[in-house]
Amino acid sequence: MTVDTILTGKVVSPHGVYDRTSIAVKDGKIVSIGDKSTMPPAEEEVDYGDLLILPGAVDTHTHSLGTAEEGHWNSTSAAAAGGVTTINDHPLDLGGAPSSSDDIYTKAEKTAKEAIVDFSLLAAGLPEKMDNIIEVADKGVTGYKMLMHTTSGAHAYGMRAVDDGELYAMFERIAKVNQVGMVHAENEWVINYLVDKYTKEGKTYLAAHHETRPEFTEVVSVHTAIEFARALDMRLHIVHVSVPRSFDLIMQARAEGVKVTGETCPHYLISNEDHWKKVGSHFKINPPLRSEDSRQGLWKKIREGKIHMVSSDHAPHPGVEAPNVFDNPSGSPGIETMVPLVFHEGVHKGNIDLPTFAKLMSYNPAKLMGLYPQKGSIEVGCDADFAIIDDKKEWNIEAKNLRAQSGWSMFEGMNITGKVLATFVRGTKVYQEGEVIGEKGYGKWVKKTRNYDL
Amino acid sequence: MTVDTILTGKVVSPHGVYDRTSIAVKDGKIVSIGDKSTMPPAEEEVDYGDLLILPGAVDTHTHSLGTAEEGHWNSTSAAAAGGVTTINDHPLDLGGAPSSSDDIYTKAEKTAKEAIVDFSLLAAGLPEKMDNIIEVADKGVTGYKMLMHTTSGAHAYGMRAVDDGELYAMFERIAKVNQVGMVHAENEWVINYLVDKYTKEGKTYLAAHHETRPEFTEVVSVHTAIEFARALDMRLHIVHVSVPRSFDLIMQARAEGVKVTGETCPHYLISNEDHWKKVGSHFKINPPLRSEDSRQGLWKKIREGKIHMVSSDHAPHPGVEAPNVFDNPSGSPGIETMVPLVFHEGVHKGNIDLPTFAKLMSYNPAKLMGLYPQKGSIEVGCDADFAIIDDKKEWNIEAKNLRAQSGWSMFEGMNITGKVLATFVRGTKVYQEGEVIGEKGYGKWVKKTRNYDL
Amino acid sequence: MTVDTILTGKVVSPHGVYDRTSIAVKDGKIVSIGDKSTMPPAEEEVDYGDLLILPGAVDTHTHSLGTAEEGHWNSTSAAAAGGVTTINDHPLDLGGAPSSSDDIYTKAEKTAKEAIVDFSLLAAGLPEKMDNIIEVADKGVTGYKMLMHTTSGAHAYGMRAVDDGELYAMFERIAKVNQVGMVHAENEWVINYLVDKYTKEGKTYLAAHHETRPEFTEVVSVHTAIEFARALDMRLHIVHVSVPRSFDLIMQARAEGVKVTGETCPHYLISNEDHWKKVGSHFKINPPLRSEDSRQGLWKKIREGKIHMVSSDHAPHPGVEAPNVFDNPSGSPGIETMVPLVFHEGVHKGNIDLPTFAKLMSYNPAKLMGLYPQKGSIEVGCDADFAIIDDKKEWNIEAKNLRAQSGWSMFEGMNITGKVLATFVRGTKVYQEGEVIGEKGYGKWVKKTRNYDL
Amino acid sequence: MTVDTILTGKVVSPHGVYDRTSIAVKDGKIVSIGDKSTMPPAEEEVDYGDLLILPGAVDTHTHSLGTAEEGHWNSTSAAAAGGVTTINDHPLDLGGAPSSSDDIYTKAEKTAKEAIVDFSLLAAGLPEKMDNIIEVADKGVTGYKMLMHTTSGAHAYGMRAVDDGELYAMFERIAKVNQVGMVHAENEWVINYLVDKYTKEGKTYLAAHHETRPEFTEVVSVHTAIEFARALDMRLHIVHVSVPRSFDLIMQARAEGVKVTGETCPHYLISNEDHWKKVGSHFKINPPLRSEDSRQGLWKKIREGKIHMVSSDHAPHPGVEAPNVFDNPSGSPGIETMVPLVFHEGVHKGNIDLPTFAKLMSYNPAKLMGLYPQKGSIEVGCDADFAIIDDKKEWNIEAKNLRAQSGWSMFEGMNITGKVLATFVRGTKVYQEGEVIGEKGYGKWVKKTRNYDL
Ligand SMILES: [Zn+2]
Ligand SMILES: [Zn+2]
Ligand SMILES: [Zn+2]
Ligand SMILES: [Zn+2]
Ligand SMILES: [Zn+2]
Ligand SMILES: [Zn+2]
Ligand SMILES: [Zn+2]
Ligand SMILES: [Zn+2]
Repeated sequence: MTVDTILTGKVVSPHGVYDRTSIAVKDGKIVSIGDKSTMPPAEEEVDYGDLLILPGAVDTHTHSLGTAEEGHWNSTSAAAAGGVTTINDHPLDLGGAPSSSDDIYTKAEKTAKEAIVDFSLLAAGLPEKMDNIIEVADKGVTGYKMLMHTTSGAHAYGMRAVDDGELYAMFERIAKVNQVGMVHAENEWVINYLVDKYTKEGKTYLAAHHETRPEFTEVVSVHTAIEFARALDMRLHIVHVSVPRSFDLIMQARAEGVKVTGETCPHYLISNEDHWKKVGSHFKINPPLRSEDSRQGLWKKIREGKIHMVSSDHAPHPGVEAPNVFDNPSGSPGIETMVPLVFHEGVHKGNIDLPTFAKLMSYNPAKLMGLYPQKGSIEVGCDADFAIIDDKKEWNIEAKNLRAQSGWSMFEGMNITGKVLATFVRGTKVYQEGEVIGEKGYGKWVKKTRNYDL
Repeated sequence: MTVDTILTGKVVSPHGVYDRTSIAVKDGKIVSIGDKSTMPPAEEEVDYGDLLILPGAVDTHTHSLGTAEEGHWNSTSAAAAGGVTTINDHPLDLGGAPSSSDDIYTKAEKTAKEAIVDFSLLAAGLPEKMDNIIEVADKGVTGYKMLMHTTSGAHAYGMRAVDDGELYAMFERIAKVNQVGMVHAENEWVINYLVDKYTKEGKTYLAAHHETRPEFTEVVSVHTAIEFARALDMRLHIVHVSVPRSFDLIMQARAEGVKVTGETCPHYLISNEDHWKKVGSHFKINPPLRSEDSRQGLWKKIREGKIHMVSSDHAPHPGVEAPNVFDNPSGSPGIETMVPLVFHEGVHKGNIDLPTFAKLMSYNPAKLMGLYPQKGSIEVGCDADFAIIDDKKEWNIEAKNLRAQSGWSMFEGMNITGKVLATFVRGTKVYQEGEVIGEKGYGKWVKKTRNYDL
Repeated sequence: MTVDTILTGKVVSPHGVYDRTSIAVKDGKIVSIGDKSTMPPAEEEVDYGDLLILPGAVDTHTHSLGTAEEGHWNSTSAAAAGGVTTINDHPLDLGGAPSSSDDIYTKAEKTAKEAIVDFSLLAAGLPEKMDNIIEVADKGVTGYKMLMHTTSGAHAYGMRAVDDGELYAMFERIAKVNQVGMVHAENEWVINYLVDKYTKEGKTYLAAHHETRPEFTEVVSVHTAIEFARALDMRLHIVHVSVPRSFDLIMQARAEGVKVTGETCPHYLISNEDHWKKVGSHFKINPPLRSEDSRQGLWKKIREGKIHMVSSDHAPHPGVEAPNVFDNPSGSPGIETMVPLVFHEGVHKGNIDLPTFAKLMSYNPAKLMGLYPQKGSIEVGCDADFAIIDDKKEWNIEAKNLRAQSGWSMFEGMNITGKVLATFVRGTKVYQEGEVIGEKGYGKWVKKTRNYDL
Repeated sequence: MTVDTILTGKVVSPHGVYDRTSIAVKDGKIVSIGDKSTMPPAEEEVDYGDLLILPGAVDTHTHSLGTAEEGHWNSTSAAAAGGVTTINDHPLDLGGAPSSSDDIYTKAEKTAKEAIVDFSLLAAGLPEKMDNIIEVADKGVTGYKMLMHTTSGAHAYGMRAVDDGELYAMFERIAKVNQVGMVHAENEWVINYLVDKYTKEGKTYLAAHHETRPEFTEVVSVHTAIEFARALDMRLHIVHVSVPRSFDLIMQARAEGVKVTGETCPHYLISNEDHWKKVGSHFKINPPLRSEDSRQGLWKKIREGKIHMVSSDHAPHPGVEAPNVFDNPSGSPGIETMVPLVFHEGVHKGNIDLPTFAKLMSYNPAKLMGLYPQKGSIEVGCDADFAIIDDKKEWNIEAKNLRAQSGWSMFEGMNITGKVLATFVRGTKVYQEGEVIGEKGYGKWVKKTRNYDL
């Protein structure tokens, strides 16, 4: 027989690092890992020398349809250029948050025409449509998004902060179908109080954003979500966790048997609450950037194995700079820079080793969402999704080269060591050195098949 | 010189037990403790033999004006008959919850005409009148009552569950004036959801009361209140805690520097969620009676020193028994039976020693409310407030003999070892063997003077 | 090119389970893992259908030369028949405990003539020859064995319980060369006191063995060893841990930064202190079998990920049954039954999944001893060491079929689900269905190359 | 009637502070506490104005007979001058350690002829005379002293470090009679190893003392003693604890139900391991002075309520300064400066309040030793033992003014705020402003009557 492709390089799996090892791909799947001399002829052979072959990143948290400009072509092009081979698109979509199987099928169909990397879909948990939670549960969705805080623009998508009764009611249904609830955990009522107070006092400067969202506004919501999950034995995932202590609560609850996981994002790992001094309103995101102590605290948690994964929370919006910080949108483009940023600060700076990197970016997200073993690893039988990384290459982030339609980056000008050279999805190269070369619509919907206990 | 009274007996202070010891009283104060032979002549000498002379109980939690029938004459008569010499009246009053100094002075004046034991007053924390928190802070109030759940009848008093933003806003003000916030911690929104659900399903039997208020509905609110107190360095007191795990959270937060205390009530220590089988709707109270495991868990916490005090939550209402449990009022008469019940189950059954009893019932509540050293102990300089207890006397609780205007008791028929024989307030006997002998209006308003760290 | 062998089956690595997957072997190494259709021609192909292909077990704890009868031919034959492909032989050898490089080379040479599976060697930590610790450190030994208790027969090997000063002095040297200290942790002085006391009282019945070695005699020595390791930042491994609480201490110390690991043994996982009722003096082992509560506690620790590995502590001695239990030797044959017993009680009964089994038996021991990636996993580049297991096959343990020269088994007659069908060492089959087919002297010395932080 | 004496001042009990309060004394006992106007005529009235009247200190740890020079006249004179009204003399006596009731009676008789403050006696736990533990248990001794380390000079008293088996055997007996075991917890074998090593390397400078006794040599022995106490449910008291982490172990064990307490000493609270730079060999004590971090850590433990008491470990020896630090004796005179030092660093510097001071110095030691309520507090019925302290008075420690026969002080020249003005034992003044005025032989043997759970 022959295979389609053989890639050779320094293979990094979640379980180890293998120098000068080859991967044979046939029909989009990894069919063999080993010494190239043992492999059958291939239509194409690529030798990456000592460059890294990593599993493509699996991003649990993207917002492709949250702005009129972005859409799945742009977001997945940016993904491809950033070494991300699967995105999990959240339901905060202009035009309404998909919650039923009809909604999901419609979105899947539309996305499949645009995407160039694979995608999975998260349904919306809507208090007004609770029956949909049951109805859509086994249709391949990766879980449900719920808001404890009406984050920027959420009203436009038909999603709002739910009260504790609504949250509990939705958790009840999610537990019943043994699915995963993903929660934006910030306290709506305290933040609204503080924003009102600041507004009345005329304190609308940039730093007012994080001053009105102190760390406890996240922590208190994490407590609440965990207690509900504990009471119901529900699978809970806290998205974009920004406070180290939140991970302490998550780990303590896990030790007590609660099924809860947490993700953080590159921006919390790279910059801090003073970042507005560099980038003006582009620093604005929910939850906000935290203190330098907290940023370092998150790395400590990562080193201790207390953070399960990193997601981009890719939410690009056109850059505006209103005089009142509260009038600016929150959210940041992030999918194209996620892998390089975490590689730079994590692997290059010695905070984590390569298998841990693969766990944070690929393996654990794929398991959380029930996409493993199709996605998330380099093992025989997995999809041939790879990010080829030059771990010594230095470069600078420049928004003008990025594909998100926002046209800016929170990390403009940052010098990075570690660059994505090429990206493969199911054995096909979709990105190479600056060029997205896959075709629109190559991406496929990946459905959840089972739960894992991370 | 001469003194007014010398009492002799087995003196129990929060710090020790002193056999055959005398207490000399002059002008309502303890002026000497010791051997009677050392004392000057007294106008009256009473020798109680081996009976116990305890500090009068200080009840942090009464509702004298919550029903048209009760009022301070009745509630303080019941207090006197129950060995309670100071009540802290909560602001859930028919006609409106006092929150300003005018409100408080008016209530104090009115109460002073009725009461026969001393009283302190708790102000209402009202989101609509937040300025009052600052204004009334130094007027002698013992703190502020806030509701995280709109308990039975609360609307009638102009108090309702506040949302988290309102709670935080009030905590901010309380922290600013270094006062104490007392919180009813149950989750309004989850309970409402569950009650609605049960109602729709026609499940309105008696046990539906506690089934719709599972333990986590308390725990989650305790988390929230503690996080707010932590963020603001505010003094927090959680009233009527019913779940052992809540005390774990309180103790852990204290170990981390949060200023938080908790009280439980006799009913959580004596009976459990199956109590409706004995007493019908009279078991109904918020938070509800818990499982037998939890009841025993509370005693374990007491033995481990993790519960600061016991209060009555005296809330008598005329007994009704609606076909739908949710239509019945919540709350129970309790002040007259509190001391005997805790004595019986605690001291008589060997769960606690006498000084611990004095700490739970008198010393710690007086310190929490800043009434110590005037109230709460038997030390030179304290008010001569005593409960004389026959620790061997057996009797049965019979509602017809109790003074609360509700006319029933959750503990009807219970056999008790340990009986209050007489009660003294500021050296004057106000109760003796079945008769309230003090006069209406003898009771005085006791004002808070400072904070203690319990 | 061609490869030597291709095995196909349900491949179990420490990282996952891969149905119907093939492994290509050349020159004793795994050169490829994948779909068989992708692989080059092989001299031999074996299709195991749905049977399990696991990494061969790595046993950190064997005593091949502790009795005149056993020797490495017998112990490694038993290993091969039990799916164990590498043994780590401890230095309690008749004729003297090897501690210098001369000693080790001599033992290695001798062993290499006998063994049919691979072996590594542990040096003796001898207080009389402390310089040897430094001298032998980089000669490929996997660490040092030290006794805190003079276990049965130890004097015959020139090893005895060291006092705390000697232990600390040896730890100092081990820390200096960044090696691993492996400790038998039982308190010599308390056990001797209790044995003397029992003997004087005439209490020499079988149960006297465990009664004179209560659980705290292990725990207290674990404390001591951990404190020394903490003070010196030394790598500590506690062998044959029998008490669940010992693992709590280990895990707590690890959380505090101490480099400590622990192993338990099949006998502690399968039977309990009442086992003498079934097998007479054959139950005798140090530390002793524990209570049924503790046995279940160990499984709980395994399920929680708090036990790093399982070893056999293979110490066969001819069966005798002295009238005085203290006159019987301690130690038990175990290497041939280890994999089946842990498979049966662990995997078959649902306590652990297959990758966890591979971690406990192969991956973690190989990492602890610095033999990974040569040993301990199924990954490209590893030695082709496999145990083929029929996970559904039922059989009974019968000592007459076992290869240890003791001629008895503590588990005589036990019904097991899960049987080793064949064993491969470096690609060569050394055992198949009841027959050891490898040749004497096939086994090679495997040297430690580096440390891993487990 | 009349009383003997009335003292008036600012009374400090373990439970509170009472301004301008009087204490009436008759026949050596406190017969009344209160307002002076209520008290009967007294033969003597002393008004101390605003000076403090504290309970006399109860020192659990003195060595009066460990040197030929000291003896009970000197040690109790120093006690009187230092506000200490009861000493608990340890059995490290020249001429042999008392362990039988004969020994104890003989020592008591002899001591009663010399002492001017009251005393209790600790028996020796001797492995050679274990039966004495049972025999002397109910003769009024406060417990047993045992050495895990052969501290300086111990051989001269017939006491040596016991091995773990001997320690356990003695604990067994102590548990059987429900008495208290007091342990010097340092690891004999590690310290000996390190001292030998240093000696061989010629490192005999002063700092070698603490370098050969690193903190873990205490911690590891604390672990051992606690595990034995846990296994036997024995009452354990660790004397002269010098390491903060030891108190963590004690508190954790207590939370798990172990009956263990700990004391620290003034020197660990006042100075640190660099103290030899100031005082040469006079800094030498076992365990040694620790790092400044540890010194501050002990105060943190005190503030957190994790240290039960402070003792002097009064062990004066004539000052010598051998060229080899290991040839110098260990031990320090301390009883006369204990109360002022802890007052200065504790109360004056704001680390603790006055009632906590009374707990550490008087109340808790008296309870530990079963001397309360006779000793340790200011309550009606207690012995009239007082220290009168001027809390504002500044003075300098000068060894020439101290009564210990060593003639030096580790704290020479230190400026102190807080001075003992007078001391009363059983109502009789034994010290006043520089003069010991009690008579030799006034002191009485105080016997233990019961156990308390601290
Ligand atoms: Zn969000
Ligand atoms: Zn988002
Ligand atoms: Zn309430
Ligand atoms: Zn209430
Ligand atoms: Zn062993
Ligand atoms: Zn062994
Ligand atoms: Zn000592
Ligand atoms: Zn001493």
